[in-house]
Parts: sequence; C-alpha cells; structure tokens
Amino acid sequence: MTAEPLPPGATVGIVGGGQLGRMMALAASKIGLKSSIFAPDEDCPAFEVATFRHCAAYDDRAALERFAREADAVTYEFENVPAEALAIIEQHSHLAPNRRALEVSQNRLEERRFLAGLGLPCAPHAEIRGRNELEPAWSNLTAGQSDTLLFLKLARYGYDGKGQMRIGGAGDLAPARQWLGNEEALLERGVDFAYEFSMLCVRDQGGRMSCYDPPRNVHKGGILRESIVPAALPDDVLATAKDIAGEILAALDYVGVLAVEMFAERHNGGIRPIINEIAPRVHNSGHWTLDACPVSQFENHIRAVAGWPLGTTERHSDARMVNLLGEEALRWPSLLEENPSRSLTLYGKKDAVSGRKMGHFVELKPKP
Amino acid sequence: MTAEPLPPGATVGIVGGGQLGRMMALAASKIGLKSSIFAPDEDCPAFEVATFRHCAAYDDRAALERFAREADAVTYEFENVPAEALAIIEQHSHLAPNRRALEVSQNRLEERRFLAGLGLPCAPHAEIRGRNELEPAWSNLTAGQSDTLLFLKLARYGYDGKGQMRIGGAGDLAPARQWLGNEEALLERGVDFAYEFSMLCVRDQGGRMSCYDPPRNVHKGGILRESIVPAALPDDVLATAKDIAGEILAALDYVGVLAVEMFAERHNGGIRPIINEIAPRVHNSGHWTLDACPVSQFENHIRAVAGWPLGTTERHSDARMVNLLGEEALRWPSLLEENPSRSLTLYGKKDAVSGRKMGHFVELKPKP
Repeated sequence: MTAEPLPPGATVGIVGGGQLGRMMALAASKIGLKSSIFAPDEDCPAFEVATFRHCAAYDDRAALERFAREADAVTYEFENVPAEALAIIEQHSHLAPNRRALEVSQNRLEERRFLAGLGLPCAPHAEIRGRNELEPAWSNLTAGQSDTLLFLKLARYGYDGKGQMRIGGAGDLAPARQWLGNEEALLERGVDFAYEFSMLCVRDQGGRMSCYDPPRNVHKGGILRESIVPAALPDDVLATAKDIAGEILAALDYVGVLAVEMFAERHNGGIRPIINEIAPRVHNSGHWTLDACPVSQFENHIRAVAGWPLGTTERHSDARMVNLLGEEALRWPSLLEENPSRSLTLYGKKDAVSGRKMGHFVELKPKP
Repeated sequence: MTAEPLPPGATVGIVGGGQLGRMMALAASKIGLKSSIFAPDEDCPAFEVATFRHCAAYDDRAALERFAREADAVTYEFENVPAEALAIIEQHSHLAPNRRALEVSQNRLEERRFLAGLGLPCAPHAEIRGRNELEPAWSNLTAGQSDTLLFLKLARYGYDGKGQMRIGGAGDLAPARQWLGNEEALLERGVDFAYEFSMLCVRDQGGRMSCYDPPRNVHKGGILRESIVPAALPDDVLATAKDIAGEILAALDYVGVLAVEMFAERHNGGIRPIINEIAPRVHNSGHWTLDACPVSQFENHIRAVAGWPLGTTERHSDARMVNLLGEEALRWPSLLEENPSRSLTLYGKKDAVSGRKMGHFVELKPKP
C-alpha cells in the first residue's frame, strides 16, 4: 500500500490498451499524473494518449517487470488479464485493485462461490464441469418445468454476451453438450427481471466507499446499448444494492472503482436486487460520469489507485449514455448535427467491426 | 480549407507544448483524433499526452515540414509562435486559425490598427516608437491632468502582465524612457472599469459563430486568478460584446476559438464594453467550460480546426474557476479534501516557479 498519495508527475501504469485504459490514461493526465500502458497490440486505443508505451505479450516477464518498475502504481482495465501477469507486477509496484479481485471476477464459478460465501443474492445456479454434468443440473434447476429458461455461461472469458448459451427446453440440451465439451461453466436460471442496473462504487486505500447513482442499463444481444440515470430505483432497493456493493468491496479489500451488474427481479409483487456479475474496474455503464459528474469514474479510480482523496460521486445532471457499436460510429457527423448538445467520445479504433464498441455519446438533462 | 471533416483517426497538429496544447490534445483524443505536438522543450506538458511528438526549435524548417506533413490539420496554442513557422506549416497542411490572426494579435500595435480599422472600442492610446516619442504622447493622452494613469505596453511578447509598465505621473517618465529604450510600444490610458470579462467565441469553416457565456475575470499582478460565470452583464452590454466579437472573427475569417478580453467601463452612469486585447486561441478564462459545458472550448476549437460540426456553447451549471499559481498547486491534497466536489486539473509542470500557472480547479453550482 502507498502510505502517501503519489505526487503529481508520478506514473500510473495501466494493464490493457482498450477504451477503458484510454479513458483512465486521459483521467490520469487531467490530474497531472503520467500514464504508462502495457498492451500486446501496437494499434491499441490507449497507446495514442499514453505518456509511456509497453507493447508486449501478457506472458513476457521481462517486459512486465520493466513496466512495473517504471510505474509508481499499477492498475488494470479488464478482468481477462492473466493473474500471473499481475503476480509479477505486484512484486515491483503497488497494484490496485488487488490480484484477488481479478481472480474472483475472471472466473464465474469463483465469483459465485465468493458471493455465496458472503450470502449475497444471485440467481439459482449450478456449477458444471464438462458436458456430463449438464443434464442432472438442468433437471435440478428446472424442477420438472422443462420450459424454464436457463443460461449456460463458460467460467472464463465471458463478456458482452460472449461465452453464453441459452437453454430454453430439453431440445437445447444436445447442442449445449456439444458446445460445452469439457469446459467449466455456470448453469443459471433466467431471472424475471423488471430492468437491469449497475452499482458503480469506489473505495479508497483507507476503506472509505462512495457510490455513483446507479444507471438503468439496456442490453441487446448481451451488449450494453444504453445507460440512463437516474434509474428510478425504489429507495429500499437502492439501499440494499448499496449494502451489497459495500460488502463486496470490503470483502475484497478493494481499492478503485468496481461495478456490480444487477437485475431488479420481480419478487412477491415487489422488486429485489439480484447480482448478475461483478467487474473489478471502471465500467461501460459509468461512462456518463465523464459528462454528468464533477469527478468521473475514471478519475476517481485513478485517485484511489494513487492514494489521493476521492472526489464526489454526485452528479449535476441527469444523463443518458448510448453506445456506438460497429458501423453506428460512422454516423458521427449526423449524430452531432442532430443534437449539438451531445457529448461524443470516440475510442480511436480503426475498424468498425460489427458489434465492436467504437464510442459513445451522452445527453444531459437538468435534474428535476 | 478542408472541404470534408477530418475522419476519426486523423492527426491534429498543435504548435506549442504548454497547458493549452495539452488540453487541446486531450480534447482531440476524446473525439478519436490523434494529436501531434511541436514544441522546443522536451519536458513540456503537452508531450505527455500526445500521440506524436516533435521536439525542435521554432526556426527548424525541416522539423516544421515533417510535423506539418504528418498532420491533417494544424493549430497553435499561443500567439508568440513566430509567424515564419506558420508560413512554413501552411505550405504543407491546413492551418487554423490562419496566420493573419496570429500576426494581428502578437503585436499590440498591429492589433490596435486592426481594431481601429473596424471602428471597435478601445481605450485612448498612442503608438510609441522608442523613448523619444514617449513624452509627447503622454502629454497628449493626459491632456494636462498629469496624474492620469497610463500603461506603457511593449508591442511584442506581452502576456500575464509581462512587458508592461505603469505610468502614474510625470515622475514615472524618466524610468519609463529607460525601460523602453528603442522598443515599439503602446501607450494607453487606464480604463475606469467596473470589472473585466472575456468573450470566448468559436467560428467554424462555414462562418457559423457561437459564444460561451462570458466569464467575469479577476486579475492580480496582471495574472488571471479567477473566472466566474455568469458574469451578470447587463443585456445590452452582452449584446454589444457579442457584436464586437462577431466583427473580429468575421474580419479575420477566423476558424477556431478566439478570446476577446474586455473591460466593462463605467461610462455616463452606465457600463460599456472596451476591448483590452484579443487572443487567437483557447483561453485561460474558458477553462471552466471543461466542467460546466457538454462541449468545452478545447473540443470546439479542435472541432472547428478539423472541420467538424460545432457543439453547443451552452453550459449546464454556473462555475467558478480558480488558477493555481506556483506553490499554490502544492496544496492540492487539502484543496480536494476541503471540497470533494472540486474538479482539479494539473498541467504536469515540474517546477512550481512563483507565478507559474500549474493548474486550476473548478467549482460548479446549479443554475438558478
């Protein structure tokens, strides 16, 4: 742990070169810190704005050591960084969030065990180790109602709807067996949710925690399309969701921003929050904080990592964030002309591959 | 002129590596453009965030040509760039604002002639070519009232109160003669002003112009300390000030952000705007736009230079911007702890030299 805050001019290392790393680097620059990006892809978005660039594979020990020694603190932008890379980095620099947070969230089974250990609410689920465990688990979770909707989710490398398969009835079992092979996976009952939302929380090195107003999130095909604040959660749901996030952050001794994706489940005529998954990082559903808050999720993350006092998580405006996927980003001139008050962010990605997150825009509205 | 807007991924060249260049580069990155900085000082703030870095002297023709060829458009961050450097750059890239805007504003005499040519209101003044012209001009401007306050301002390289001398009476003439030597200067009558404000306007390649709400500015020792919006200008003063700015931008066929520093002069029991000086660039008194507007002065400047549609110049909040000079910036931890809603920007400068602009913070308030 850094006892003293890093002084302006210090270097924050960021593992990963995507748009989250890019926006973290920009946030570090805002407050006078230097940024250093470690990423395997020369053309990655974050290199374009970084003070220092380390282009190497995640298993290149020498390169990881050079990167870590140069940085006064190191963080990461996504949970699919190999834990072994962080193990090397933490020997040479201050790492936040810690490796345990990454390990818990990069494996769905690990994550569920962690949440179960805290007694936190998740959808009914079972752990599956290879195809032969699929049918018994399915029978259990459907409990005779064979049209119950289930989701089979690979333990590793799932994000943006990847690594998932829908099981809507017995007829889906054979293709699911084939798809799964010998992989580990989570089989989960579909939640009857009214809407999705996410808790975006930041915790500093002294254990103080603060949450942004949770956005209501709209997904299509497993990919986030829109986040809207306020989410208009009932007060008791918001309070429960904050408690849940607080327990997770404390249990992980977490430093930085963490996102908890949640379902607002219909339950006994009311609504209750159910955890979908956690992400040990800044989160797509928090991009509106760049425009609607004096201190964005990116800046508060960097402040926490650097041992700085946290900024407010309050917002001055209501906001709607819309992701630009693939070719949608090519419409930027008309998006700006249609509404000159839109704040556009583009990530510097070269190819507008279908479904790829190319940028986003935010529309603000005065708070009522 | 670029007929088509530059596509995302294009490179905007910025001449000058100070904090204005740094914040321009960050704004370019936000909208998916690459930045390229040309500056003579290796340690300059803007290099830390730039995609491409050209470290060379302003009279290094080969380096200027390389820089200009690499950039799809070029702009500049301050008016003391040698005009000869821009003359080289404009042969190889699209330059905005144009060279004429720089030439007019980097010489006070040139600037006054330009403004006089448009019939725009300035304080009574005289052009001085060397010490021998001082006393006759002084007699003229004081018109027998020898305690009239005058300012003697060198024609070149004046900013932040540098290159100026106060003449409060006949006794100051001898030291002023010595200080002036053979330089060219402007001798100007002090304005009885109620307050200072600035117009921050942006004009696109098609001639459309838009102005931010003018901030009220507080200077000490010639250096800006605070900018506050709204400035609470009377409607007629605001309308006149906008007309003045519009005439300046149109006369220069200007593209980008231009600042007009103005005095609110007491006149016949009312207030009227008087031009102090113009700056062909983003301006310190507009830093609050980063926090209080969906589209900042930096982003609108880059959009204009890149031929993009301009964004709104409206603000969602009232704002107060406070400059951090020299050692004041060392107080950043307590500045953040005292008020977690402050948005802090630090410029990455190494040495907290007295009077040096090291950063600023902004406080927002809801609009009434």
